[in-house]
Amino acid sequence: MKRYLLLNGPNLNLLGKREPGVYGSTTLRELEETIVKLGIENQVEVSCYQSNHEGSLIDKLHEANELGLDGVIFNPGAYTHYSYAIRDAIAGINVPVIEVHISNVHARESFRHESVTAPVTKGQIVGLGLKGYELALLALLESTRERG
Amino acid sequence: MKRYLLLNGPNLNLLGKREPGVYGSTTLRELEETIVKLGIENQVEVSCYQSNHEGSLIDKLHEANELGLDGVIFNPGAYTHYSYAIRDAIAGINVPVIEVHISNVHARESFRHESVTAPVTKGQIVGLGLKGYELALLALLESTRERG
Amino acid sequence: MKRYLLLNGPNLNLLGKREPGVYGSTTLRELEETIVKLGIENQVEVSCYQSNHEGSLIDKLHEANELGLDGVIFNPGAYTHYSYAIRDAIAGINVPVIEVHISNVHARESFRHESVTAPVTKGQIVGLGLKGYELALLALLESTRERG
Amino acid sequence: MKRYLLLNGPNLNLLGKREPGVYGSTTLRELEETIVKLGIENQVEVSCYQSNHEGSLIDKLHEANELGLDGVIFNPGAYTHYSYAIRDAIAGINVPVIEVHISNVHARESFRHESVTAPVTKGQIVGLGLKGYELALLALLESTRERG
Amino acid sequence: MKRYLLLNGPNLNLLGKREPGVYGSTTLRELEETIVKLGIENQVEVSCYQSNHEGSLIDKLHEANELGLDGVIFNPGAYTHYSYAIRDAIAGINVPVIEVHISNVHARESFRHESVTAPVTKGQIVGLGLKGYELALLALLESTRERG
Amino acid sequence: MKRYLLLNGPNLNLLGKREPGVYGSTTLRELEETIVKLGIENQVEVSCYQSNHEGSLIDKLHEANELGLDGVIFNPGAYTHYSYAIRDAIAGINVPVIEVHISNVHARESFRHESVTAPVTKGQIVGLGLKGYELALLALLESTRERG
Amino acid sequence: MKRYLLLNGPNLNLLGKREPGVYGSTTLRELEETIVKLGIENQVEVSCYQSNHEGSLIDKLHEANELGLDGVIFNPGAYTHYSYAIRDAIAGINVPVIEVHISNVHARESFRHESVTAPVTKGQIVGLGLKGYELALLALLESTRERG
Amino acid sequence: MKRYLLLNGPNLNLLGKREPGVYGSTTLRELEETIVKLGIENQVEVSCYQSNHEGSLIDKLHEANELGLDGVIFNPGAYTHYSYAIRDAIAGINVPVIEVHISNVHARESFRHESVTAPVTKGQIVGLGLKGYELALLALLESTRERG
Amino acid sequence: MKRYLLLNGPNLNLLGKREPGVYGSTTLRELEETIVKLGIENQVEVSCYQSNHEGSLIDKLHEANELGLDGVIFNPGAYTHYSYAIRDAIAGINVPVIEVHISNVHARESFRHESVTAPVTKGQIVGLGLKGYELALLALLESTRERG
Amino acid sequence: MKRYLLLNGPNLNLLGKREPGVYGSTTLRELEETIVKLGIENQVEVSCYQSNHEGSLIDKLHEANELGLDGVIFNPGAYTHYSYAIRDAIAGINVPVIEVHISNVHARESFRHESVTAPVTKGQIVGLGLKGYELALLALLESTRERG
Amino acid sequence: MKRYLLLNGPNLNLLGKREPGVYGSTTLRELEETIVKLGIENQVEVSCYQSNHEGSLIDKLHEANELGLDGVIFNPGAYTHYSYAIRDAIAGINVPVIEVHISNVHARESFRHESVTAPVTKGQIVGLGLKGYELALLALLESTRERG
Amino acid sequence: MKRYLLLNGPNLNLLGKREPGVYGSTTLRELEETIVKLGIENQVEVSCYQSNHEGSLIDKLHEANELGLDGVIFNPGAYTHYSYAIRDAIAGINVPVIEVHISNVHARESFRHESVTAPVTKGQIVGLGLKGYELALLALLESTRERG
Repeated sequence: MKRYLLLNGPNLNLLGKREPGVYGSTTLRELEETIVKLGIENQVEVSCYQSNHEGSLIDKLHEANELGLDGVIFNPGAYTHYSYAIRDAIAGINVPVIEVHISNVHARESFRHESVTAPVTKGQIVGLGLKGYELALLALLESTRERG
Repeated sequence: MKRYLLLNGPNLNLLGKREPGVYGSTTLRELEETIVKLGIENQVEVSCYQSNHEGSLIDKLHEANELGLDGVIFNPGAYTHYSYAIRDAIAGINVPVIEVHISNVHARESFRHESVTAPVTKGQIVGLGLKGYELALLALLESTRERG
Repeated sequence: MKRYLLLNGPNLNLLGKREPGVYGSTTLRELEETIVKLGIENQVEVSCYQSNHEGSLIDKLHEANELGLDGVIFNPGAYTHYSYAIRDAIAGINVPVIEVHISNVHARESFRHESVTAPVTKGQIVGLGLKGYELALLALLESTRERG
Repeated sequence: MKRYLLLNGPNLNLLGKREPGVYGSTTLRELEETIVKLGIENQVEVSCYQSNHEGSLIDKLHEANELGLDGVIFNPGAYTHYSYAIRDAIAGINVPVIEVHISNVHARESFRHESVTAPVTKGQIVGLGLKGYELALLALLESTRERG
Repeated sequence: MKRYLLLNGPNLNLLGKREPGVYGSTTLRELEETIVKLGIENQVEVSCYQSNHEGSLIDKLHEANELGLDGVIFNPGAYTHYSYAIRDAIAGINVPVIEVHISNVHARESFRHESVTAPVTKGQIVGLGLKGYELALLALLESTRERG
Repeated sequence: MKRYLLLNGPNLNLLGKREPGVYGSTTLRELEETIVKLGIENQVEVSCYQSNHEGSLIDKLHEANELGLDGVIFNPGAYTHYSYAIRDAIAGINVPVIEVHISNVHARESFRHESVTAPVTKGQIVGLGLKGYELALLALLESTRERG
Repeated sequence: MKRYLLLNGPNLNLLGKREPGVYGSTTLRELEETIVKLGIENQVEVSCYQSNHEGSLIDKLHEANELGLDGVIFNPGAYTHYSYAIRDAIAGINVPVIEVHISNVHARESFRHESVTAPVTKGQIVGLGLKGYELALLALLESTRERG
Repeated sequence: MKRYLLLNGPNLNLLGKREPGVYGSTTLRELEETIVKLGIENQVEVSCYQSNHEGSLIDKLHEANELGLDGVIFNPGAYTHYSYAIRDAIAGINVPVIEVHISNVHARESFRHESVTAPVTKGQIVGLGLKGYELALLALLESTRERG
Repeated sequence: MKRYLLLNGPNLNLLGKREPGVYGSTTLRELEETIVKLGIENQVEVSCYQSNHEGSLIDKLHEANELGLDGVIFNPGAYTHYSYAIRDAIAGINVPVIEVHISNVHARESFRHESVTAPVTKGQIVGLGLKGYELALLALLESTRERG
Repeated sequence: MKRYLLLNGPNLNLLGKREPGVYGSTTLRELEETIVKLGIENQVEVSCYQSNHEGSLIDKLHEANELGLDGVIFNPGAYTHYSYAIRDAIAGINVPVIEVHISNVHARESFRHESVTAPVTKGQIVGLGLKGYELALLALLESTRERG
Repeated sequence: MKRYLLLNGPNLNLLGKREPGVYGSTTLRELEETIVKLGIENQVEVSCYQSNHEGSLIDKLHEANELGLDGVIFNPGAYTHYSYAIRDAIAGINVPVIEVHISNVHARESFRHESVTAPVTKGQIVGLGLKGYELALLALLESTRERG
Repeated sequence: MKRYLLLNGPNLNLLGKREPGVYGSTTLRELEETIVKLGIENQVEVSCYQSNHEGSLIDKLHEANELGLDGVIFNPGAYTHYSYAIRDAIAGINVPVIEVHISNVHARESFRHESVTAPVTKGQIVGLGLKGYELALLALLESTRERG
C-alpha cells in the first residue's frame, strides 16, 4: 500500500478562519480528513502534518525520505518565496513532491519574488482551491504508477 | 450538458514528435481523444483546437465566450511568456480558463520572463505531464459545479 | 480628398461587451460609424479595420502605405507593450500614425512594460475614452494640413 | 459658464525661443491667446499660468480646486518625471486634469524615468504639438459635459 | 540534391523600399533570386517564403522539418527580440537554422532586449548586408557537408 | 482591561549586551519591565515574549489572536527583511500590530531589502531607541480607544 | 524653555479636506493647535510652518538651526521620496529631526522609491495618524532630555 | 567685457558652517569675493547668486540667457541628482555652463543616482575644493575665447 | 585549552546520503569525528551541533558566546543566502566565525542571491570538500594564536 | 593587392587543444594557414597575430590603421564582453573590422554581459565554427569591393 | 622642485588623428609639450607616459609612488569604466591623482557603466578639452601647496 | 615530486607596503619564501610569479598547463571582478586552481560585481590573511593526492 504525506506550511493552520472570502470556510482538519479519505479510496495511506516552523518542515521532508514514503503533497505557504533551505530539502530526497497553492498567487502577490521551491518539485497546482490537494493526490497516483 | 474547449498553442502540434524524453510519445491527436473521452465520461462535450497563431487563439477564446462554453483548458505554450494580447482575451471573457503546462517550466526555463497569462486564469497546473490536462478537466467540473 | 485608416488591434472587437464600467457600452461598429461620420464632415474618407492578428495589422499598415493613405488612427491594444514587429511596420511607412488608448493605461497597467510603439508614432492620446479617436482625427487633419 | 486653467510648468516660458526645430516659433503668450480664444468659442473662461517653481504649480492646482474650476490643461514639463508632490496635488483635488506634452517624449527622452503624474491625470495627449492643448480643451468639454 | 528554405520575417517585404540608406535598394524578390541562383550553382534547391505573421513562420519551420529540408536561412526580423514561440519552433525541429540580420542590430537597437532566437540557432550572421544571406548559404553547405 | 503582547524577534535577547554604543545598556528584561509597568499605569496587561525562531513568533501571533488580545508591539528584528511567513501571520490576525525598530535601520542597513512586514502592520516607529516601545504602547492605546 | 518646529510639506495644507477616509477630518490648523497645546503642557514652545515649496522647507530648516531650536517634527510629504536637497538640509543642521507620515506609506505607495530623507533623520513614525505628531513630540522630549 | 554668473544651489549658503572637515571654513560670501576678484583680474564681471529654490535657479539661468551672459559657473548641489527641470533649463539656453562640485561626490554619495545635469553642461570639475570654482572660471575664459 | 564549535546548518544531516557524486560518501558523524580528532591533535576541544532550524542555529551561536568559546566553524547551508537573522547573530557575538561550503557554490548556484552571512564572518572556505572544515580549524588556530 | 589582418584574442592560442568537442582539433596555426591560403586565392595578403594581452591587441589595431590595411578579421575572445578599450580602438580606426566567434556564444554564455565590441564592428559572424573566419574574409572582400 | 606624471591611457596616442571634430587636431606629443612647458612655468618637472596596456599603467602608477612624485594627471581612457585593477593601484599609492577626460563622457557614453576610478582619485575634470589637463596641473599645485 | 605555481595578480607587489592595517607588513617576497618553504616540507616545488598585466597572468596559466604543473595558488586581485579572459584561461587548462583573497572581499567591496573567476576554480579561500595561501597549498596537496 502506498503512503503519502500531506504537508502544510506556515499560517495554513488558520485555514477556514482567516479571509474566508479567499480561502473558504473549510478548516485544516476538515481538509486533512478529505484527503485521508480520498487516499483510502485509492489504497493510499495519507499522514498529515502542519507547522509554522521552517526547520520542522525540513525535518518532516527528511523523515518522509527515511520512511520511504511514496509522495508528498506540499503547500509551503509563504516559504515558497524565499526558503532555499526547504528547496534543498526537496532536492535532497527521493520522494516526489507536488506543490499546491490554494489561491492564484500569481494574481494576488505580484510584489513577491518568484517561487524558489517550484523548480525542484515534480509539478505545481495553483489557484484551484482545496480541490488542488485532491488533484495533487491523483497526480501522485499517476506518477507513482509509472515508477511503481 | 457542459461544453469545454481544449485549446493548445504554438508548437504543441509537435507533441509526441519532438523531445520525447521530455514530452513523451503521445501525439496531440491522442491527447485530444483522451480528453474528449474523459469529457464524455463526465457528461462534458469537449471541442479541440490548436494553432501556432496568436490571433487565432484569441479569436477562439472570443468564440468560446460567444458560444457560452463552460470552461477552457488552455496550454498557451510559449505565448504564456509575453502575449499580453492573449492575457487580455482571457480577462475579457466570462469563461473560466485553466492553464496547463506539460513540463515543469519553472525548472527548465529560468531565463524567461514570468507567465503573463497566469494572473488572469482561474489556476494553473504545471509539470504533471499530459495528466495535467485531465486534472484541469476535473478542476473545471468542480469549478462549474459551484457556478452551475 | 484625404483618406485615413482607423485601425484597431486585439480584443477591441469586444468593445461595448467587456468591462463596460471601464470601456462604456459603445460597440466597435458604433465607434467606427462615429469616426467615419466625423471624417465625412471634414472631407476625409475613413476606412476601418480590426484584427486580433499581429501579422494582419502589419499587413494593413503596409497596405495603407501602398495606397498612399494620409493618416492612421491606431489603437494597438496589448501589442503596444511588446510588438517590435508592429513598431518596425510603423517606422517603415510614410503615413503618420497617431496612437490611441481608451483608458489611462498608465493608471491601470503599471505591471506592464513600456509602450514600444509610442516612440515611432507621431503622438499618443491616452485615457480620454472614445473621444480620443475623434481627437486623433482632428490632430491628423492638423498634421496633414501642414504637410498638404 | 465653465472655467478652465491652462497651466504650464518649467521652461515653457522659453516656448518659441529654444529649439524652434522641435517646438516651433509660437511663443507661450501666443499659445495662451489661442487657447483663451478657443475657450470663448466654446463658452469657457480660460485663465493662464506658468511657473518654473514646483511649489507654485502645486499652489495653483490647490487654488483651482478652491475656486471650483472645471478643468486643468497641464503641461508639467520636466516635473512629469519626478514630482511626486505635484502628483499628490493632482490626486488631492477634484478638478479633472489633462496632461499635455508638445513633443513625443517617448521618442526623445528614453533615458528618463516614467511619467509619475500620468497615473493620476484623466488622460494624456503627447507629441501633437501645440495642437495638443486645443485637443485637451475639447476633451475637457466632453468630459465636463458628462459630469455637468 | 540538398534543399534549403530562405525564410524572411516581418517587414522584410519592404526591402528596397524603406530606409534605402540602411538597407539598400535591392528588393526582396531580387534577393530571393540571388539566393536561388547561388543555390543552383551549389546544387541546392532553395525555396523562399516571407510573412509578417508569427504563426505562419512557425508553420513554415514545422513544414521544413516534415519535408526533410537540409537547412534554413532565417531573418526573423523584429520577432528575434521577443518570439519565444518561434524560438521553440526552431528548437523543436531537426533542420539547422542560420539567423541573418542585414544591419548591425547591436549598433542600432540598443534599447531592445536580447535576441531570444539566437541561442537555438546554429549561428548568426549580423550586419553584413544582403551578402549575409549568401554567407549563410555557404555556411549551411559546410555544415550539411559534415552531416551529409 | 486591555491586554497587549510585547513581542521581540531574533537577537533581541542580546539587548544591552551587544553594541552598547548603538543599542544602549538596557537589557531585554529591563525593557520588558518598563513596558509592563507603563502598561499598568494605563490599565493594560502586557505579556512579553522573545524568540529567535521564526515559527515561534508566528505561533505567538496566532495565539494572540485566539486569546483576543488588543494589540501587539512587535520588533521583528532581521525577519522584517525577508519573512513573508510572519507577514502573512500579521495579515491573517485581527489584532493591530505596531512595528518597532530601535535604531534607524534606514541609516544603517541600506544594503538590505525593504521591510516586508511594514505594509501589513498598523504603523512603524523607527530609530527612537527603547523609547519607541513606549510610544508604540501609547499609539496602541489611542488606536484601541477608537476601536474600543 | 525648549523650542520645536512643526514643519509640514506639500499638500498637507489639504489635511482634513482630501481623502478623509484616509486622513480623517482634522485640518492642518487644528493639528497645529493640538501640537502647540501639547508643547505648552511639556514646557515647549512650538512654532508651525507649512509650504508646498521645497526651497522654503529648506530655508526653514536652516532658520531652525540659526535660531538654535531644539527639535523639528517634520512631515516632508511627497518630498520624502526624491528630495536630496531636503536631505542635505537635514544632514547639514544640528537640530534633531523626527520624520512623521500620517498613513502607512509602505502599504499604500509601493510603487515609489524609498524614503531618501529617513537615513538622516533621528527616527520615523509612520502610519499612526495624527497621533504620530504627538508621539514625535514626546520622542523629541526624551531625545533632548539626553542632550540637555 | 565678459560677464559670468556664479550660481550656487541648495545648502551652499551653509558653506563654511557645516562639515568643515569636508568643506573647509571658507563661507559662501568669501568664495564669491574670491571669484569676483579673479574675474576682475581677467576682465570678467562676475555676478553671484545662491538659492535653495529649484525654480529660482531655473529663473536665473533663463535670465542669464536673456542678459546675454558669457558663461555660468554652477554648483547645483543636490539638484544635480534629480532635477530634470534644471537640466532642461541648461539645455534650453545658449550660455555655456560648467558644473562644479566641491567634494568628490563619486567617492561619498554612491547611493545616489547619476548626475542628470552633467550631460547638458559643457564640462564638470569635481572634488577639487573651492579651487574648482577658480578652474571653472579659467575654463570658461578658454571656452569663450574660442567662441569670441 | 581552546574550545571550538563545529556548526552545521540545514540538510547537512543528509551528508553522505544525498548526491554522493557532489558531496562524497562521508557522513556528518564521520566528519564530526574527523574534526574532533584533529582538534585533539591541536589541543582544541571541538563540540558539534547540526540543526535544520534557523532559530536553533542562532541560539547556538549565542550560547557559544556566553560559554566564551574561541571559534566557530560554520556551514550555514542554504541559510547563507537569505538569513539576515543569522547574520545579525554572527555580528552580535565576539567569537570569530569561519564560513565553510563543501562544494563550489559559485559554480553551481548562480541563480541564488549573494551570501548574506559572508560579510560578517572572519573568512570563507569554499569548494574544497570536507577538507575545508579542516582548513577552517587550522585558520582558527592561527587566528586565535594572534588573539591569544 | 589588398591586405587583411587576422587577429585573435585571449586563449585562442589554445585552439585545437582545449575542449575539442566544442572547438574541434584544428590548431591556431592551421587556421591561420587556411585563411592565408584563402587570401592568396582571392588576391589578398593576410597577416596573422594572436595575443592574450588587451594592450597588444589595441596596438595591433592601431598599426593596421597606420599601415593602411584593408580589413581586420577579429575574434576578441573574452575581451568582447568588457573591453571598452578595444572597442574604442576599433571605433578610432578607419579599417573595417568583422567580429568572429567560433561557437554560439549566445547559447553557451548567457551569464555574461553583452558584447561591447559588436556595436562598432562592421558585422559579426557567430557560431559557425572555423568556417566563420572564411566567411568573414569573403564578407570583407565584398565590403572592400564597394569601397575600392 | 615638484615632480608630476602626465599619464595617458588607451587610444590617446591617436589624439589629433581620430575624430578631430570631437578631440581637436592637437597630437599627444603637442599636448605633452604644452603641459611640460606649463610645468616649467610653475617650477614643476612633468614626465609623460602613454600606454594601451592596463598593466603598464599600473606599473607606472607604482613607480610614481616609489619615486616619490608629487602628483599624477591621469586620463585613463576607456579603462575608467571597468579597470578595478587601476582603481586599486590609485588607491594603493600615496600620490594624489586627478582624473581628466577630454570630452563630456556623461553626454556621449550613457550606455557605459559608471567610472570606477573616480571614487579613489582626488577629483575629476571632464569635458573641458585639452584645457582640462592644464587645469589639473593647477589643481595639483594648489593641492600639493596645502600638503607641502 | 609535485610542482605548484604561486600566482599573484595586480597590486600584490605592494604587499606589506600599502594599507598595513588591512594587509599586514609581510612583503610579497616574504610570502613567497614562506610558501616555497612550506612546499619543501611537503615535497612540493613551488615557483612564484607576480604581474600587473592581465595578459601575462594568462600566459603564465597556459605555461603551467604546458609544463604539466600539479596546481596553482592564485590571487587574481582586482581581475577577479571582471576578467573573463582569465576565467577562460583557468577553464581551458587542466591544472587545478585555488583562488585566494587575503581580506574578506565580501565585507569590504560590496559595490563591486561578483567574482567571475570563482566559478571555474576548484575552490576559494577568502579573508584568512596570508594564512590563506598556506591553506590553499594544503588543499592542493589533498586534491592532488586524490588525483595522484
